[in-house]
Amino acid sequence: MKLASLNVGRDGRLVVVSKDLSRQSDASAVVPTLQAALDDWERHAPALRALSERLEQGALPGAPFEPERCAAPLPRAYQWADGSAYVNHVELVRRARNAELPASFWTDPLMYQGGSDGFLGPRQPIPLADEAWGCDMEGEVVVVTRDVPLGATREQGLDAVVLVGLVNDVSLRHLIPGELAKGFGFFQSKPASAFSPVFVTPDELGPAWREGKLHRRLEVFLDGQPFGRADAGVDMTFDFGTLVAHAAKTRSLCAGTLVGSGTVSNRGPDGGPGKAVSAGGAGYSCIAELRMVETLQDGAPRTPFLKRGDRVRIEMRDEAGSIFGAIDQVVGG
Amino acid sequence: MKLASLNVGRDGRLVVVSKDLSRQSDASAVVPTLQAALDDWERHAPALRALSERLEQGALPGAPFEPERCAAPLPRAYQWADGSAYVNHVELVRRARNAELPASFWTDPLMYQGGSDGFLGPRQPIPLADEAWGCDMEGEVVVVTRDVPLGATREQGLDAVVLVGLVNDVSLRHLIPGELAKGFGFFQSKPASAFSPVFVTPDELGPAWREGKLHRRLEVFLDGQPFGRADAGVDMTFDFGTLVAHAAKTRSLCAGTLVGSGTVSNRGPDGGPGKAVSAGGAGYSCIAELRMVETLQDGAPRTPFLKRGDRVRIEMRDEAGSIFGAIDQVVGG
Repeated sequence: MKLASLNVGRDGRLVVVSKDLSRQSDASAVVPTLQAALDDWERHAPALRALSERLEQGALPGAPFEPERCAAPLPRAYQWADGSAYVNHVELVRRARNAELPASFWTDPLMYQGGSDGFLGPRQPIPLADEAWGCDMEGEVVVVTRDVPLGATREQGLDAVVLVGLVNDVSLRHLIPGELAKGFGFFQSKPASAFSPVFVTPDELGPAWREGKLHRRLEVFLDGQPFGRADAGVDMTFDFGTLVAHAAKTRSLCAGTLVGSGTVSNRGPDGGPGKAVSAGGAGYSCIAELRMVETLQDGAPRTPFLKRGDRVRIEMRDEAGSIFGAIDQVVGG
Repeated sequence: MKLASLNVGRDGRLVVVSKDLSRQSDASAVVPTLQAALDDWERHAPALRALSERLEQGALPGAPFEPERCAAPLPRAYQWADGSAYVNHVELVRRARNAELPASFWTDPLMYQGGSDGFLGPRQPIPLADEAWGCDMEGEVVVVTRDVPLGATREQGLDAVVLVGLVNDVSLRHLIPGELAKGFGFFQSKPASAFSPVFVTPDELGPAWREGKLHRRLEVFLDGQPFGRADAGVDMTFDFGTLVAHAAKTRSLCAGTLVGSGTVSNRGPDGGPGKAVSAGGAGYSCIAELRMVETLQDGAPRTPFLKRGDRVRIEMRDEAGSIFGAIDQVVGG
């Protein structure tokens, strides 16, 4: 099934959405919000699934589904734990500044605790007070878990995944070096993330969801031009089960925890940095990666970060069309 | 007024508590949970205050207040932003490993994004799967904000503070160096924090709450012995208004955001590290600080981190008695 939250109140109003994303039906008679559904998933999921099937069969009136009216599926959440599972991306970051990648980075996931108190809807503008902060998109896959016990294994972590979606993990690149140098990780450099209009249960993904990875291309557009189409199932060093287990090593995780993949990134055919889409490559899911490639090739980056009025679109499609709907945001507000 | 959450369901059941912490009265007829109260504070605070006054006057039946039955006032929250405002503490950490403190640390607050999806109640044991992780307490003051706009000033930040409490920011010291070396801040090294039984409105603090600081001693006991009694109003380089403004520099903050002071720490009379309570000093609010002093004095730490069965008590009193009730936890579970 596919679920969305209309932009009503602080926590949204839950709707079920048809597989083709054309229609929706109010789900608040079952449970008012997605967080409430996740808090008692075993009880609410079957009723939501039944509602979803009736919508699919045309047995419910429904209404047109309008992503413009959506909040993030979880408009605010209790936890946003963002991994960095495409170690290729991390290695590029390091190479661009002549730093070695520690060998442990291939076996021990990078993960940061993100702000989760307010997310952007899929069509809401990215608030940017200062262009000098170096605003960037980061296209990622994200999963939502049910409750996860402390010390969960990879298998338990994977079993805890109940929903999958996309995220634009907005980053302020020029604030990152100063903030990371202080040693406590990201805070000001990671403003509100935006999420896809719908989150879907893994069964909606068919065989593309396997081994804890989503084997589909993440399509990223910048100002209408194709920017990235990296396969999220390729070069993902740590699968979602491993990421969830990493997050749960020293503490339990509450239902509704969001775990991100990190910026999707594919190597080039020669094992080096990927090529731009315009050069026939898989491109990039963030501007920073293109700038690193430019730095490695030409000694300096050429592509600027986002300016007010720039438009970012992030989507993933299967044979039938858009799976999650598109994140489609203008910078500025 | 003083508010607490009984350990019922995922978000607790709100009660008002008498000033002397002897009695409570159910507040769920006004609003069921503290988060719901914070979501519409202007509307709910007056009704809660009226209820609180009736309890104080004996005009409500009430029931004995039992901290053992409490969850954290916010059993889970949308944001836990922990500062490190006692730069004295940070400087000591650095000195113990022969590292310079960057000058900017005196003007730019350190803050990390903490996990907020599940907190411990004031009397709940600290779950510790492995003693080798180096478990430590960190006694801190914490404030709760209403909604804060992006770019808030210090004054707006201070005005947004609606509740004040105490926190034990549990830390796994031996996991910190490896995690910080990866560059993304704390994750596994910061398991669930515990909070004081009650949070109070700033007016309950009288003149001890001034200039964005709480001028009272934070009493920390380890296995029944006095361990710390540092004045939270002394050597706090960044007041809570500044900390809230720091958190809101690039994004708005949701009502119910928790902002921590960082480990309370006082310098000694000579400006150097503080002395132990047993030596007549203000002592320490975490074991790590004592170990740093031991390292500076003797070349190596002597005091071990927490073991299963150890007991941590954190409390703050005024002339009338305990302000927030005591955090009193056994390690192990």
